[in-house]
Amino acid sequence: MFSKWPLLKTLREYDRSQAGRDVLAACLICLLLVPQALAYAQLAGLPAVAGMYASILPLVVYALIGASPGVALSYGPVAVLALMTAAALTPIAAAGSAAYSVAAVGLTLLVGAFLLLMGVLRLGFIANFLSHPVISGFVSGAAVLIAVSQLRYLLGVSVDGLTLPQVLPGLYAQLASIHRPTLLLAALSLLLLVLLRNLSLLSVPAAWASRVKQLSALLLMLLAMAVGAFLPPEGYGVKVVGQVPAGLPTLSLPTLPLGLLRELLPAAVLIALVGFIESISIAQSMAMRKRQSISPDQELLGQGAANVASALSGGMPVAASFSRSAVARQSNMATPLVGIFAAGLMLAAVLGLAPMLRHLPQAVLAASILVAVIGLVDVPTLRHTWRYSRAEGGAQLATFFGVLLEGVEAGIMLGVCLSLLLFLWRTSRPHMAVVGQVLGSQHFRNIQRYDTLQSTSVLSLRVDESLYFPNARYLEARIGELIAASPDVRHLVLMCSGVNQIDASALDTLEAIAEQLHGAEVQLHLSEVKGPVMDRLQRSDFLQRFGGQVFLSQYQALCTLDPQCAVRGLTPE
Amino acid sequence: MFSKWPLLKTLREYDRSQAGRDVLAACLICLLLVPQALAYAQLAGLPAVAGMYASILPLVVYALIGASPGVALSYGPVAVLALMTAAALTPIAAAGSAAYSVAAVGLTLLVGAFLLLMGVLRLGFIANFLSHPVISGFVSGAAVLIAVSQLRYLLGVSVDGLTLPQVLPGLYAQLASIHRPTLLLAALSLLLLVLLRNLSLLSVPAAWASRVKQLSALLLMLLAMAVGAFLPPEGYGVKVVGQVPAGLPTLSLPTLPLGLLRELLPAAVLIALVGFIESISIAQSMAMRKRQSISPDQELLGQGAANVASALSGGMPVAASFSRSAVARQSNMATPLVGIFAAGLMLAAVLGLAPMLRHLPQAVLAASILVAVIGLVDVPTLRHTWRYSRAEGGAQLATFFGVLLEGVEAGIMLGVCLSLLLFLWRTSRPHMAVVGQVLGSQHFRNIQRYDTLQSTSVLSLRVDESLYFPNARYLEARIGELIAASPDVRHLVLMCSGVNQIDASALDTLEAIAEQLHGAEVQLHLSEVKGPVMDRLQRSDFLQRFGGQVFLSQYQALCTLDPQCAVRGLTPE
Repeated sequence: MFSKWPLLKTLREYDRSQAGRDVLAACLICLLLVPQALAYAQLAGLPAVAGMYASILPLVVYALIGASPGVALSYGPVAVLALMTAAALTPIAAAGSAAYSVAAVGLTLLVGAFLLLMGVLRLGFIANFLSHPVISGFVSGAAVLIAVSQLRYLLGVSVDGLTLPQVLPGLYAQLASIHRPTLLLAALSLLLLVLLRNLSLLSVPAAWASRVKQLSALLLMLLAMAVGAFLPPEGYGVKVVGQVPAGLPTLSLPTLPLGLLRELLPAAVLIALVGFIESISIAQSMAMRKRQSISPDQELLGQGAANVASALSGGMPVAASFSRSAVARQSNMATPLVGIFAAGLMLAAVLGLAPMLRHLPQAVLAASILVAVIGLVDVPTLRHTWRYSRAEGGAQLATFFGVLLEGVEAGIMLGVCLSLLLFLWRTSRPHMAVVGQVLGSQHFRNIQRYDTLQSTSVLSLRVDESLYFPNARYLEARIGELIAASPDVRHLVLMCSGVNQIDASALDTLEAIAEQLHGAEVQLHLSEVKGPVMDRLQRSDFLQRFGGQVFLSQYQALCTLDPQCAVRGLTPE
Repeated sequence: MFSKWPLLKTLREYDRSQAGRDVLAACLICLLLVPQALAYAQLAGLPAVAGMYASILPLVVYALIGASPGVALSYGPVAVLALMTAAALTPIAAAGSAAYSVAAVGLTLLVGAFLLLMGVLRLGFIANFLSHPVISGFVSGAAVLIAVSQLRYLLGVSVDGLTLPQVLPGLYAQLASIHRPTLLLAALSLLLLVLLRNLSLLSVPAAWASRVKQLSALLLMLLAMAVGAFLPPEGYGVKVVGQVPAGLPTLSLPTLPLGLLRELLPAAVLIALVGFIESISIAQSMAMRKRQSISPDQELLGQGAANVASALSGGMPVAASFSRSAVARQSNMATPLVGIFAAGLMLAAVLGLAPMLRHLPQAVLAASILVAVIGLVDVPTLRHTWRYSRAEGGAQLATFFGVLLEGVEAGIMLGVCLSLLLFLWRTSRPHMAVVGQVLGSQHFRNIQRYDTLQSTSVLSLRVDESLYFPNARYLEARIGELIAASPDVRHLVLMCSGVNQIDASALDTLEAIAEQLHGAEVQLHLSEVKGPVMDRLQRSDFLQRFGGQVFLSQYQALCTLDPQCAVRGLTPE
């Protein structure tokens, strides 16, 4: 059972040194979180302040409900979910409109509700159905889409859509009307970012270089705001974040029509799953390093509550951020209280920064997004997967291109379906091996791979798959061939070490095979049938009717059916 | 490779006695085929003559192309495909209209084309994805729908639709306007059929009784036509088959708009698959009795060509009929030439019977359909499946009710999806067992089921499932629990006899597990890894990096890792 208030245990043992470490980590998180919150809100098509709002209350709620002690994820806006949010909302309302913001709240609420539901019903396993290649292909594709989506801000043009077929023609048509001051600003921003992120190449000490790299987005933004105060970029026609309402979010929900929620539901389910996978992966790797275990259901509840909190404060879907959680871990954060400290700092930032954001150019945010996501394009994993399995590499590529061409939801669904079909395809054509006794052992292996002893009257066939409807006929056909080719055989032993289940169709087929073999004067036997499979077989009358025996081991089968042959096998070499 | 003209081989060895047997079988087939052709055409909503036409050329074509020697299926209209035809065409045109007949031709052509395509591309395995419970549930549901669809003819009312929610309210509304003469005729027909099919109860010799049972539909029909010649039933307002164009079908195709074909395609694919499964099942059981093998691809080509031939002669989708094929087998038919003889007889029947059909009441055909299909409702299989596996029984029931409530296509798709999801669900939660050495053997089994020896320093875990993305996390969790509970363990051996594949996600998980275990000072090893799995692992760098060994057998693993323990195991009892 998960604990309802994991933080209570933490608080009982909290001391000053822990508090110090947590406050430091919270500061570092916020230095990353402020620029990311602003940028990802822009990516999601939402007002900048929505990103800030999503970085306050959700952190508090997650710290209270979700976090396992010692494993504190840094919640808040993340790039991939921001893109998915834009993809879900763009067909419903115009980005920047009030209807768009209302839909965003509805989406976030649904994400939270679905995560809570998964947590209560213990449905976390659903997330397992996204395979690693599919996730990797999806993240790579999303990173490219995110980068492309920011080109409009970097070039100062207006283009609609998210997928490549939607965006690229529009961009091409607008090439002539690129806004030069914006482009210049974007180029300078990118240059500065690249410089700040690669100080180590300029023989700056590594510790410094890596710290500056982490803060590069914030430094750029502060510089842009400082310059903007003297030279307002609006004066040159450069688009800026603009007036931001100072003050706190009100905790309220707008009226959400049922039709809107129904329309948003599929996207919400996917956002919830993707967010959960990202969060749980980070949590598991953090827990593993500390030799702790985490409760996925607890994480679900925490993440669900965090999203509900985000919806209540007018924010956007939130999940754990890999980069921010890594910073928290590296800075030796002590407890989940770090989230509450970070929320406090973000609150101060909202109050303090809001007035300064009005001169922040969108192109600067776009540049920081571009640089951040380009590293998400994951070519090594693709190469790795491809080398291990062409088919799985194909599924990864299909997901990647599916995301680019048809959008994030279609891409993920394509990847999941392909992965499952691939598994079904493989299990529907099972590998089978005629086995013999490995010389000097009681172990039976494929006669084509090992030096083995074989009986002339007993044929031993190992089936390397659960027997179920798509593959039952193959077994029938293979046994037919084998028996036709082995006229002296009197016993066929099906070695079931690889048979993890036998379904009703396969049971029918086994009965038919046994009957068919009787006609050819061959008796069917089974060996090494596993407990759960045996339990089930005993519910049918197959064991009474098929006429053969069920042997504990293949060796025992041979000892019984062809004693002479088996004894030879026992003799040491 | 399949042979292009299997009949040639037959002809070379054909003799008089074979010819005599074939002609006799052809006569018996036709005595069944004539009433069935008429009745199933009515069931499909087509003119009676379409059923006859579908029983001539297709038989010839199948005999030439499809039939394996000695295995001759009786092709022609079958009840379930007739129902599926009606289901596919009803939304497109009004039954009985010219557009309906054109759509029937298009559907039949598509069925044939898809079967040919499956045969050429060797896609026969697709049919394996319909599990036995799903087929059984589907056939039972279809039988009920067929019976219900005939009530309108038995009661003399007019009702639209095919599924229960479509038909039942209409029937209820029409109860007041039942046509009494039709009902009387229907009741008499049913009574006569029941009588003729149960003569054995009236101490008629069994051989006679069974022959009469087979011919009951024909006898009823002949009686009705004879009576009708004197007392035309139209005079009493009873609906009749009506004027049938005498003469032969012209071999031609109507213009088939592409849009129509596209609309019919999903139904055609399902009809092709269902027809193929029915045919291949009959062929396999016939071949098994003769110790012959059949080529599924050859059957696909034959059935595809037969359907194209049916389309060309203005007919309806055809498949092998279980009842007629059984009659052919029982009458000791010799070669596939029986199909050609039967086609000749059907040709004569079309020419001779056509004028006599005009007085045949539809209620008589409906009565014969009702009695024929009621036996298709397959309760024993449901009981059998349910006892073996609640989940599979549930899938069968879902298919049954899906067919009744949503129609044949939706029902089948529901069943297939449920069956596949059930398999995925089971494989996603794998059974795992800690194994020990069974006393007095080198065999390792579940310590909870057998008396075993266990090492204190070596933990042996058998995973009873292929490792792939949905279940990889369970392995990680289970190993985590086991290691936490066994502080003395220094080696964990994963016994992979049940692991038939390891996908890229699971490989990542295995690497993570190995790393995690290193931290806990436990070394991961593998044993009994199968050849194909090992081949794939060698494509990755896992085997170099995980630090453990891959043992031929679990026994060998124990001998190496804890020699003292293993030697004890060797000692005979």
